[in-house]
Amino acid sequence: MHAQPPSSTVSADHPFAEVQVLAFDIFGTVVDWHGSIVREMQALYPAVDASAFARAWRAGYQPAMARVMRGEQGWTLIDDLHRGILDDILPRFGLAHLTEAERQHLNRVWHRLDAWADSVEGLARLKRRFIITTLSNGNIGLLTRMSKRAGLPWDCVLSAEVFKAYKPSPETYLGVARVFDLPPRQVALVAAHHDDLAAARACGLRTAYIERPQEFGADHPKDVSPQPGNDMHCTSLTALADRLGC
Amino acid sequence: MHAQPPSSTVSADHPFAEVQVLAFDIFGTVVDWHGSIVREMQALYPAVDASAFARAWRAGYQPAMARVMRGEQGWTLIDDLHRGILDDILPRFGLAHLTEAERQHLNRVWHRLDAWADSVEGLARLKRRFIITTLSNGNIGLLTRMSKRAGLPWDCVLSAEVFKAYKPSPETYLGVARVFDLPPRQVALVAAHHDDLAAARACGLRTAYIERPQEFGADHPKDVSPQPGNDMHCTSLTALADRLGC
Repeated sequence: MHAQPPSSTVSADHPFAEVQVLAFDIFGTVVDWHGSIVREMQALYPAVDASAFARAWRAGYQPAMARVMRGEQGWTLIDDLHRGILDDILPRFGLAHLTEAERQHLNRVWHRLDAWADSVEGLARLKRRFIITTLSNGNIGLLTRMSKRAGLPWDCVLSAEVFKAYKPSPETYLGVARVFDLPPRQVALVAAHHDDLAAARACGLRTAYIERPQEFGADHPKDVSPQPGNDMHCTSLTALADRLGC
Repeated sequence: MHAQPPSSTVSADHPFAEVQVLAFDIFGTVVDWHGSIVREMQALYPAVDASAFARAWRAGYQPAMARVMRGEQGWTLIDDLHRGILDDILPRFGLAHLTEAERQHLNRVWHRLDAWADSVEGLARLKRRFIITTLSNGNIGLLTRMSKRAGLPWDCVLSAEVFKAYKPSPETYLGVARVFDLPPRQVALVAAHHDDLAAARACGLRTAYIERPQEFGADHPKDVSPQPGNDMHCTSLTALADRLGC
């Protein structure tokens, strides 16, 4: 259970040599929100274009958070933002007739997201060397239930809910460093989104980009080419563990 | 990884029949603060009465939290309260000469507390059926590092730091219910302290008392006799798992 000293595979001048905490983005990076929603929609409502439905639901997320961050709406858990977006898009997909109970059940799909195939093994290996924590805009209850179901072995569950600010607010990235009483350079963000990583980097965190080309579905491939600025660029969480000698 | 349905060993009218989340007090309930501090003090400063030192350090804890809760001091992490108390008591034990580095190291003993012998197995078994979370006045960084070292398999790490209130404030107990979007009766507090359990019960939570007769050392046995009001009274976390059919 004791933290291991850095192995010889990470040299003293590696950007992660001093890192003690890995903070993970969740939706898209560790779990496959698109595929998970598609699978549930196809089972429940086979007439609906499940892939487009999943993307429409996710597309409402940034604007909903932006309304909260502009102060147009008080602090709101992601569960409630997801529900508002769901109610908005249901008529567009011919599902305006869903009952309250059906809507509640469907909204909870975000608690039932499946991990990418490499996530459980990658996290278990990284956990041997680092403190591994979530850093997600998802609320704590959502993250905990999802992680328990998927077997994600976090040391800690941090969320926008703890900091009362959503990513990419600096309060979230610097909040992780403060929680663990570390300078920002000893914390790294692991994410499949360059904007999230850029905001973390601006706060002094280290960064690792994870390629998730199918985040939006096989029919909507995502550009996962490297961008300058990230300390690491990996194809999976197991590849990140390989590179860090875990 | 999926939550199991209640087993036949807990009947429908058992007070825990509807409980989904077990929230655990930590210091004294899951980990042995007294024995852990004694072992470190005996190794570092063998001339000191380690048992009395541990009790003096712990005795400063409630008054320090009370000053914060009365508003005489801003919100303060337990790591910092521990440090203030440490600086106060060192001269009394002939340790006024300790350097800043030695004080910092000693203060971190709270991150290195050992679990009681039954805790890891008990939690692992309870985790099969329930969401298991900390609910401690200890800060998140302390709880995470301590739990990682001791192998405590939490689903979630909740702390006074999340709610900006210390137990026994109702915000903490009701905060757990709110985080998991549950009525209070579906959350139980597990603790070795009757005052903590009484405050949780007043908020509508279920309660389980755990006997820890040696919390203050073998030379200061604690009265662990049952008190009315608690839903369960057990000798250990494995006994709690037995009684709940886990």
